Amino acid sequence: MKLYGVPGSICTTRVLVTAAEKGLDKTQLQHIPVDISAGDQKKPQYLAIQVPALQDGDLTLFESRAVIRYLADKYEGQGTPLYGSSNRDRALVEQWLEVESHNFNPHISIVLNELVFTMSRGEDPDTKLVTTHYERLDRVLDVYEAHLSRQKYLAGDFFSLADLSHLPTIFYLIRVAKKPNVIFRRPHVLTWWQLISNRPAWKAIAPSIMTVTKQPKTASTSA
Amino acid sequence: MKLYGVPGSICTTRVLVTAAEKGLDKTQLQHIPVDISAGDQKKPQYLAIQVPALQDGDLTLFESRAVIRYLADKYEGQGTPLYGSSNRDRALVEQWLEVESHNFNPHISIVLNELVFTMSRGEDPDTKLVTTHYERLDRVLDVYEAHLSRQKYLAGDFFSLADLSHLPTIFYLIRVAKKPNVIFRRPHVLTWWQLISNRPAWKAIAPSIMTVTKQPKTASTSA
Repeated sequence: MKLYGVPGSICTTRVLVTAAEKGLDKTQLQHIPVDISAGDQKKPQYLAIQVPALQDGDLTLFESRAVIRYLADKYEGQGTPLYGSSNRDRALVEQWLEVESHNFNPHISIVLNELVFTMSRGEDPDTKLVTTHYERLDRVLDVYEAHLSRQKYLAGDFFSLADLSHLPTIFYLIRVAKKPNVIFRRPHVLTWWQLISNRPAWKAIAPSIMTVTKQPKTASTSA
Repeated sequence: MKLYGVPGSICTTRVLVTAAEKGLDKTQLQHIPVDISAGDQKKPQYLAIQVPALQDGDLTLFESRAVIRYLADKYEGQGTPLYGSSNRDRALVEQWLEVESHNFNPHISIVLNELVFTMSRGEDPDTKLVTTHYERLDRVLDVYEAHLSRQKYLAGDFFSLADLSHLPTIFYLIRVAKKPNVIFRRPHVLTWWQLISNRPAWKAIAPSIMTVTKQPKTASTSA
């Protein structure tokens, strides 16, 4: 399989950490870096695809959350089980993937877009927008705090795709945008963050973000 | 199973049409109507749940797109197969569920919120907001038109959860908001819409929307 994606981008990273949890090596999933700052996405070979895109034989798949679901299913019996172990587990993973996608991501991605990607283009961030969406993120995390006081991970007592899908954005928020407070001031959210960010798969992938953010123009929030 | 949901709401309807495609009857899935205009959601028995919520034994599941995935898996061998017939099919269904959720729904739901739900509360719609998001919806549908010129349904040559997930919002747009132009002026999108809206499951469910919109205060865009 080949993954076409911008190195260090949130969506490409989401796919790469899934591959790492599944124990896929570079012969099984090859990352083909797409360099947006060099206009790669306008080259003929990329015109028909969005990035990140997974190519597996004649299947070309877009949308990072669709790609991670595909990898979790295709490698169901290998590496970390990312959907738990029953239909019930899977349902709760899907519920929290939806919460990540509809309630959490819209706010954190606006904050990151202003504080990381807008600034990396040499433009001023819209501070009012940052304040509004940081506050909304804060309220969403109240729900997470209450939930994570009752269970270890989002979907139950097992690490899953739902937890994993939060890794790149929270990492960017803490380490690149340097706005960790909404995470750090909540004991259960912080414990959960420490648990999921200390997994070997994430520790292997995260440094690539730090490398790329030193050349900020290649970072992107594209889906 | 019990489904707690506002009758005629977009998200409740999404779940009910899935149940209908799976051939579930009222002994298998009982719809418990929640009446927001009567303050039902503040009553003690509803305080711990969002609506719509599916209750199946000790599992309580929120988020309509998580609930429809759960029903599609739980009743995999019954009624319409809603994920196709292979991992590849399933991946493409997930891709188009993501497109519906991230590219299509944000715009159509703002248009519907202004033209249907805001107006039903006796407030004036924000016409600038309607124009902006109707135009964005129009551009998203350019992608659908090109895609549907090459295949019958969104994920391939089979009806799936991805098509189904569009039914309530497009129905509201055409029949309640009376803004059908973005659908009707595109021949392949129109053919697709006619195909999916003429399915017996949808024809059985759709009249409930028309009944409810005559008592507009009970309609809602809640997830």
